[in-house]
Amino acid sequence: MTQVSTASPDQPRQYQHTLSNGLTLLAEFIPNLRSAAMTLVVPGGAASDPDDCSGAATVLSDWLLRGAGSRDSRALTGYLDGLGVQRGSQAETSFIRFSASMLSKNLLSVLPVYADIVQRPQLPTEGFEPAKDLALQQLASIEDEPSHKLSILLRERHYPWPFGRPTLGVAAQLEAMTADALRGDYARRFTPRGSILSVAGNFDWATLKATVESAFGGWAEKPVVAPTARQPETGISHVRQETNQVQIGLAYDSVPESHAESLLAQTALNVLSGGMGARLFMEIREKQGLCYSVHAGYHSLKNRAAVFGYSGTAPERAQRTLDSFIVELKRLAQGITADELERARISMKSRVIMQGESSGARAGALVYDFYHRGRTRTLADLKGQIESITLDAVNAHLAKNPVGQLTVVTIGPEPLKVNL
Amino acid sequence: MTQVSTASPDQPRQYQHTLSNGLTLLAEFIPNLRSAAMTLVVPGGAASDPDDCSGAATVLSDWLLRGAGSRDSRALTGYLDGLGVQRGSQAETSFIRFSASMLSKNLLSVLPVYADIVQRPQLPTEGFEPAKDLALQQLASIEDEPSHKLSILLRERHYPWPFGRPTLGVAAQLEAMTADALRGDYARRFTPRGSILSVAGNFDWATLKATVESAFGGWAEKPVVAPTARQPETGISHVRQETNQVQIGLAYDSVPESHAESLLAQTALNVLSGGMGARLFMEIREKQGLCYSVHAGYHSLKNRAAVFGYSGTAPERAQRTLDSFIVELKRLAQGITADELERARISMKSRVIMQGESSGARAGALVYDFYHRGRTRTLADLKGQIESITLDAVNAHLAKNPVGQLTVVTIGPEPLKVNL
Repeated sequence: MTQVSTASPDQPRQYQHTLSNGLTLLAEFIPNLRSAAMTLVVPGGAASDPDDCSGAATVLSDWLLRGAGSRDSRALTGYLDGLGVQRGSQAETSFIRFSASMLSKNLLSVLPVYADIVQRPQLPTEGFEPAKDLALQQLASIEDEPSHKLSILLRERHYPWPFGRPTLGVAAQLEAMTADALRGDYARRFTPRGSILSVAGNFDWATLKATVESAFGGWAEKPVVAPTARQPETGISHVRQETNQVQIGLAYDSVPESHAESLLAQTALNVLSGGMGARLFMEIREKQGLCYSVHAGYHSLKNRAAVFGYSGTAPERAQRTLDSFIVELKRLAQGITADELERARISMKSRVIMQGESSGARAGALVYDFYHRGRTRTLADLKGQIESITLDAVNAHLAKNPVGQLTVVTIGPEPLKVNL
Repeated sequence: MTQVSTASPDQPRQYQHTLSNGLTLLAEFIPNLRSAAMTLVVPGGAASDPDDCSGAATVLSDWLLRGAGSRDSRALTGYLDGLGVQRGSQAETSFIRFSASMLSKNLLSVLPVYADIVQRPQLPTEGFEPAKDLALQQLASIEDEPSHKLSILLRERHYPWPFGRPTLGVAAQLEAMTADALRGDYARRFTPRGSILSVAGNFDWATLKATVESAFGGWAEKPVVAPTARQPETGISHVRQETNQVQIGLAYDSVPESHAESLLAQTALNVLSGGMGARLFMEIREKQGLCYSVHAGYHSLKNRAAVFGYSGTAPERAQRTLDSFIVELKRLAQGITADELERARISMKSRVIMQGESSGARAGALVYDFYHRGRTRTLADLKGQIESITLDAVNAHLAKNPVGQLTVVTIGPEPLKVNL
C-alpha cells in the first residue's frame, strides 16, 4: 500500500508504504537539502524487557552494532564512518531507536546496513560483556547526577509498570544477564510488524521504496510482544542524599498524543513552560528568584501521557519552590488569556517551521506522528492545526482536566511537605 | 567597508561590513531557508571580569535582558516571545554571546532589540539581586555534577590566568558584587570595537546593512579592555570526593585556530576522538570496555589553544583508563594512517555540509572564523581546505608537536598515578 500526500512541487512531499511483513516506510522529500536523515524504530523497548531482565533493550542497542550481515564490528563501524554517517542507537520505553544523518547521496548505501543490523546481527560472544559493562557503567554514573536520577525515579513511580521501567535497567539484573538469554530475547522481540522506518531529505521515492523492499522485505514476521500494565506507585517519595541542591520532580496525567485534545494540552504546557515569558520561568525564576532551573514538559506514550515537571534549588528555598510550582499547576484550571494563547501559537509555529529545515527533526517527527496518530502530518497540516486552536477550546480542556493527583519525588538532605 | 564573496546565484553568499565605530557585521545568505539566525558577541567575557569579581560577565548576561531601551523586563520578554524568537545569552571566556533564531521575516524587528540590549540596557535595581542569585544557584548546582565541575577545574588549571577563569564565577566574589559596581563594569567593557554581529539565512543585504547601521551605528566607541596573562598552575591535581565514578580530565597545548597548521591538529583530533571508529572510543571503550564516556576535543582561544580530554569510569578501572588514555595521546606523535585520514576527511566534510543547512550553526561559524582567522570561510572554502589536507602534512605536524606537558585533574575517592 502506497500513499502520497498532495503538495505543490516546491513544497515537502510525503510518502507512505507498508511492506507485506508489516514494516511501515515513511518519507518526506525536502527540496534543496543535501542531507538525508533516517530513523528506524523496532518495538523492543524497555517496556517489553523480560520481567526479570531490566536493561535488556539497552544492552541490545549496543550489542546489535557489533557486527551485522557479513561485516564484523570493526568493518561495520569502518563502513559507516567511511560514508560520514552520524548515528546513534538507544533503548526507549516502547522502541529501540536507530538514528542516522548523512549526505543524501549515501542514503541508499546506508539503509541495507540497518537492514542487516535488525535482521542479521552477529551478536558476537566477545562483544557481549563489553556491551553489558557499558550499560552497568552508565547506570553507575547516574548516582553522580541527581537531576538525571530524579527523572528516572519520577517516571518509574508515575507510569504504571512496565511503562515507567528505567531503560538503563537494574544493576543486579544486568549482571545476571547472559549472552544466550539476550540472543533469545532479540529473536523474540525484533519483528517488522510495528517497526517504522522514516527518511527525510533528498531522495527519489521509487528508488527508495525499491531499496527498502529489497533490504527489509525478507524480514520474517512474528507475533508482537505486547506488555500489560500494573498499578503505578505514584504518591510522594523522598530520597535522602547529601546533595548541594534539592531536586524536585512532579508528574500528573495528561491526554495522550492520539487524543483529540492533545494539541490543547500541549498549548497549555507551552503557556506554562514554553519559553522565557512562560509562567513557571517568569513567576518562579524571574520574579521570585527561587531557582535557576524550572520547567515542565509533555510526554506521551501510546495510550497514556503525563506532564513531568522539574526544578533544582537551594535547600532553604526548596519548600517555597515546590509550593509555587504547585500553585502554577493548579492555576491552569482557571484557563489562559488570549495574549498567552497568541504567544504560544507563535512559538509553536516558529518551531514547526524551523524544524522543517532539519532532516533529522523531520525523520523523527514522521515516526512520532505515525506511531501516535496513525498518520503523518505535513508542515502545512501542523501549521493549520496550530492556527485553528481557540481560546475557548483550550480553557474548556483545562477546566475539564484540572491537575489532579500529583506524583512527587524529591532528592536532597530533607523531605519537603507537599501542600496540595 | 563592504566585501562580498563571489559565488554562483544558487549558492550561499557571504557579506561583510565594518561600521565606523568598529563593529563588524557578517552575513551569509542561504537560499531556501525560512529561518534566520543571529549571533552577537561583545568582548566582555570572563577573562575581562574585574580581578576580584569573577562572575561579573555571567550576572551581566542575565541582567542585560531585564529591560532595554523603552521596554522594561516584561515588555522585552513579551516582544521577543511575540515574534517567536528562540534565544539565549551567556558569558564565555572572551565574549558575552547573544544568540537568536527566528523566522526570516522577523529578523529586522529583532536586531534593534539587541542594539538596545547592548547600548541602552536598563539594568534595573530590582533585577540585580535575582540575576546575581541565579548565578550563585548555577554555581551551587555544579557541586552535584562532578563531570561539569571537572571541566571547569581543568580549564582553570591549564590555561594561564585570566583565560581559564571560570565563567560562572566565585561564590564569595559574586556575593560581594553590587549593582553599581556592575553598572560601571558594563560601561567599561561594552564597546562596539571587537564586537561581531552575524546573520545567516534569508535576507536582503542592502536592507540588513541599513538596519544594522541605523541600530548599532550610534554605539559610542571606547578603548577595549585587554586582559594580560599570568602563569597557569597546570600539573597534576586531585579532588577527593565520594563520587560513584572517577572523573578524569587531561589537557595539553595545541596550535590556535589562527595558526597555519590548526586544521592539521583538528584532523588528528578527529582520528583520536571524532566518531564511533575513532581511536579513544575503539581502544578504551569498545575493546577494553573500560568506561562509558571517553572523548577529547579541540578548543581555541585567540592566542592559545588546547586539547581537553575526558573520561568517567568506575574506581577499579580508573587507573587503567588513565593509562590507556595517555598511551593514545602519546601514540599520536607516530602519525596516523592513510585510512584514518580518509575517514577523518569524510567525517569533517559531511559535518560541514550538514551544518550548512542550519542557519544557527552558520551564524556561529561566521563569528568563529572572523574572530580567529580575520575572515569568514564559505562552505566551498571549508570543503577545499579539508580536501587539501595531506597525510604527510598531518604526520609532520604530529611529529613536530608531540603531546608534551599534561595537565591532569581527577575527582573521586582516591588519587591516580599519572604514568607519563
